[in-house]
Amino acid sequence: MGSKGQLLVISGPSGAGKGTVCKALIEKSPIWISTSCTTRKPREGEVEGVNYFFIERDEFLNRIDKEDFLEYAEVYGNFYGTPKSEVLKMLEEGKDVILEIDIQGALKIKSSYPKGIFIFIMPPSMEELRNRITNRGSETPESLKTRMECAYDEISFASKYDYAVVNDKVEDAVKKIESIIVAEKCRVFKIKDELLGRF
Amino acid sequence: MGSKGQLLVISGPSGAGKGTVCKALIEKSPIWISTSCTTRKPREGEVEGVNYFFIERDEFLNRIDKEDFLEYAEVYGNFYGTPKSEVLKMLEEGKDVILEIDIQGALKIKSSYPKGIFIFIMPPSMEELRNRITNRGSETPESLKTRMECAYDEISFASKYDYAVVNDKVEDAVKKIESIIVAEKCRVFKIKDELLGRF
Repeated sequence: MGSKGQLLVISGPSGAGKGTVCKALIEKSPIWISTSCTTRKPREGEVEGVNYFFIERDEFLNRIDKEDFLEYAEVYGNFYGTPKSEVLKMLEEGKDVILEIDIQGALKIKSSYPKGIFIFIMPPSMEELRNRITNRGSETPESLKTRMECAYDEISFASKYDYAVVNDKVEDAVKKIESIIVAEKCRVFKIKDELLGRF
Repeated sequence: MGSKGQLLVISGPSGAGKGTVCKALIEKSPIWISTSCTTRKPREGEVEGVNYFFIERDEFLNRIDKEDFLEYAEVYGNFYGTPKSEVLKMLEEGKDVILEIDIQGALKIKSSYPKGIFIFIMPPSMEELRNRITNRGSETPESLKTRMECAYDEISFASKYDYAVVNDKVEDAVKKIESIIVAEKCRVFKIKDELLGRF
């Protein structure tokens, strides 16, 4: 029996660049990224199975009943959830899996799947976070203020995670996550039985 | 100020190749390797400050009294010890430090310096360990048997370590240790105060 895959749960405040980091990571490494389900309608340009699996409300509720979500939440009347069976199947096959997920979702997964590796992507500084959000050009002064306050609150959750990776340069952040994956596979408490079984 | 260095304590059964791995690691990475003190006489070819610091018994006993060893042991009438002040100074300056040390010594350091990162170098298999020890050509059948039994006992101590690295290929083992060093610098419980202090 080979060792099973590892579940990486990656969060961070909006603007920390977790999407960019995850995208660069899956391009370089043999990691499978889980796609969430949602009941909201696709936006222009969104692709089924890439951005989300777009499913009907009834199906979503049905899958909640069958406990087929690692976590789910209702936001502004729409459901969002992480499908369980597919993630567990990949892990069972020995594949490493990434979930890029918000902090509330990550904390729910931490209680249901504590074996996961919880990584928090940090902006290098609040100034840099402000620059990144401002450069998107879609914020009013008021919404920028709200987002910065929200990010500040979110950063305090970093202490609930196993690792914090400062996203100064994307390639450096990716290398750190790759190192975390390698190191976690050497952790004695995870591999003890398999390793000592050889001798 | 700034993050301090990390202490890597590297052990493993004789024949696992920990010496080769440590040598390759310090050639590649900016890590300082601690040199032990001993009261035994230098052997042919051994260099003061490289293999050991060769010191007199009185000086060794004096330094024990001054608690200047992270750990020490007496083996066949000779003392061996890891100098404390130099290691702590390097760590304080932010340098990562390796101690290549036997299992008993490592376990002593674990109780006196639990912040250390304890890495156990494993042979890929008992067969391979036997080959490596045999290929040195210096063993009689009897001493080989003793060494293999001793190695077998030692391997059971792997469970006391944080990480186990199988030394199949030296360069792979070195990469894994480098990954462990990088990952440990991202561990939230170590960097929380410094990291959250920025925000």
